[in-house]
Amino acid sequence: MMKNKVIRSLSIFCLLLMFQSSSYAQKSTKQKPLLIIEQGSFAVGGTIITNPGTFDPYKPTPEGQTFRGDHAYIFYQIPVKARKYPLVMWHGIGQFSKTWESTPDGREGYQNIFLRRNFPVYVIDQPRRGNAGRSTVAASINPTPDEQQWFDVFRIGVWPNYFDGVQFAQDTETLNQYFRSMVPNIGAIDSNVNSDAVSTLFNKIGPAILVTHSHSGGMGWLTAVKNKNVKAIVSYEPGSGFLFPEGEVPSPLTSSAGSLEASSIPMKEFMKLTKIPIVIYYGDNIPESLSNNPGADGWRVRLQMARLWRDVVNKYGGDVTVVHLPEAGLKGNTHFPFSDLNNIEVADLMSKWLKDKKLN
Amino acid sequence: MMKNKVIRSLSIFCLLLMFQSSSYAQKSTKQKPLLIIEQGSFAVGGTIITNPGTFDPYKPTPEGQTFRGDHAYIFYQIPVKARKYPLVMWHGIGQFSKTWESTPDGREGYQNIFLRRNFPVYVIDQPRRGNAGRSTVAASINPTPDEQQWFDVFRIGVWPNYFDGVQFAQDTETLNQYFRSMVPNIGAIDSNVNSDAVSTLFNKIGPAILVTHSHSGGMGWLTAVKNKNVKAIVSYEPGSGFLFPEGEVPSPLTSSAGSLEASSIPMKEFMKLTKIPIVIYYGDNIPESLSNNPGADGWRVRLQMARLWRDVVNKYGGDVTVVHLPEAGLKGNTHFPFSDLNNIEVADLMSKWLKDKKLN
Repeated sequence: MMKNKVIRSLSIFCLLLMFQSSSYAQKSTKQKPLLIIEQGSFAVGGTIITNPGTFDPYKPTPEGQTFRGDHAYIFYQIPVKARKYPLVMWHGIGQFSKTWESTPDGREGYQNIFLRRNFPVYVIDQPRRGNAGRSTVAASINPTPDEQQWFDVFRIGVWPNYFDGVQFAQDTETLNQYFRSMVPNIGAIDSNVNSDAVSTLFNKIGPAILVTHSHSGGMGWLTAVKNKNVKAIVSYEPGSGFLFPEGEVPSPLTSSAGSLEASSIPMKEFMKLTKIPIVIYYGDNIPESLSNNPGADGWRVRLQMARLWRDVVNKYGGDVTVVHLPEAGLKGNTHFPFSDLNNIEVADLMSKWLKDKKLN
Repeated sequence: MMKNKVIRSLSIFCLLLMFQSSSYAQKSTKQKPLLIIEQGSFAVGGTIITNPGTFDPYKPTPEGQTFRGDHAYIFYQIPVKARKYPLVMWHGIGQFSKTWESTPDGREGYQNIFLRRNFPVYVIDQPRRGNAGRSTVAASINPTPDEQQWFDVFRIGVWPNYFDGVQFAQDTETLNQYFRSMVPNIGAIDSNVNSDAVSTLFNKIGPAILVTHSHSGGMGWLTAVKNKNVKAIVSYEPGSGFLFPEGEVPSPLTSSAGSLEASSIPMKEFMKLTKIPIVIYYGDNIPESLSNNPGADGWRVRLQMARLWRDVVNKYGGDVTVVHLPEAGLKGNTHFPFSDLNNIEVADLMSKWLKDKKLN
């Protein structure tokens, strides 16, 4: 045992020396290697359809067969010297786990950034999306051209113009990669199906921090209500599904993108959201008053709703912080701050918050 | 420079020492860490649909918008001290990149096994599948129960019975993970769309070794015809699409699963397949003569067709080897030898072949 301890200590010293030295030797090239003690993938949650009848292997028909679907698909990596709480990263609308991987311009996204900061990282494809495409509901999918609209809704600019100072590379290939990072829904998006699957993930892995984006924001609150292993939530630009206590739901907020409604849950459920620290970030180029650009204007009322929600949660003893990034000194962020050109600074803000909340 | 060299050499020594020691110190726990110098994801290939008209950001409709689809999605990892040729791993029918990740019973698959053997590993989701779900063709997807049939076709057994000695864990959760590793096609499978996207990948990454499974077997030959950066092919249980020279196409082979037809290409194209080493592996429990079990019987004629193809390619100077795993001493393998219980031995066979062909 003593010998092992000595060898282990020597190894750690060597490891440090190696990294130290590689930054001298390879200054002009890549970053230090990621040290991954375990990585893999699995399905979690979901349901089973069982067809009546008996299966005949010699004359197979759907009779007597089963179909598993509506699970989430998870790819995970655990670094050496891992911190206590893993980060569980959940994409937004039209997106999948790619959200957290390489950025559209090919830099490192949150997956790598936080592995380097020693967090185990679990990236999700929610049920009926991407690699979790076995859906228990039928789907009709058509290739409807929509990219210019996403360019606007995701606040890169007003097509074909980029916002001044936007944190998004303006070459053609970046835009190509960006638009190819979308996948269709295989059937309707179901908040309960999705939060059930992610809750099952938290049962499996234990206490962890949930990182949501956009449409998963609302489903993230729902997951925290369902599972106390959600120890904290970091939410980038939550779009809808803010959960207020019954009787305290604010009136819908109107924008040129339409009406934004809040949801209600029983007070007993709501109170669970007051027990964990939550931080919400919004990027730049959100209008301050009604704008005739629906792409951007929808975010004006979402930010407004997030602040209303913060006030109610905090009134009941909660710990919600809303950070409008330009007010924190970060300018030009789109709807995807974690993959924007300044994503290291965006990650630094998150790291500082995790440290302040003693979650690292 | 000299100082850097010394530090680097010292680092490598330390690295070796560390791994040596960690295997003493942590004998009872996990394997050594993976050292990943770079990892990420990107889309490659594909096409663009452009809708006529002009996009109006203030009243968006599909008019004047674009839609990018039919790309492949790639997740890649490059280990430190990487070998010369990356492995590009392409899934089979109904599958996606998961094929090469964790096995259904939670062990390491080919992705990790070959990262540990110092190969850069690129895993593919082919166009219109999984994370490459943006398809330029419409799709209607229904949850049709089919799992018992896959159990038979993938040669785990004859439902509900497992084959004696099958290399597949017989617990419920393994089967659950196995069935949830499937995803639907978003529109028709198109061999040309798929091989074009994968060929574009080989343009991007340069010379590499293609590893195919089942349905990607035939598309793999097509990719090698299209791109000389395909330096070798390792094909597990290719199912269809064997390419013969015009005028030398064998008659269809009949099984209780139906008729298996070969394809033809001009001799000039065919000759490209004689310029690279190719190895083909088939697993166990393939009937030797006509069987009334269509699940297994389809593989009898595929193995037969692979041997006919081998003979023709080799007649023209090629280097094709067909290995029937039971004849090589590996018993009980299913349609997924690379994730079966004995997948380390299956990988060892592949490593030995790569070494024999000087590809490692």
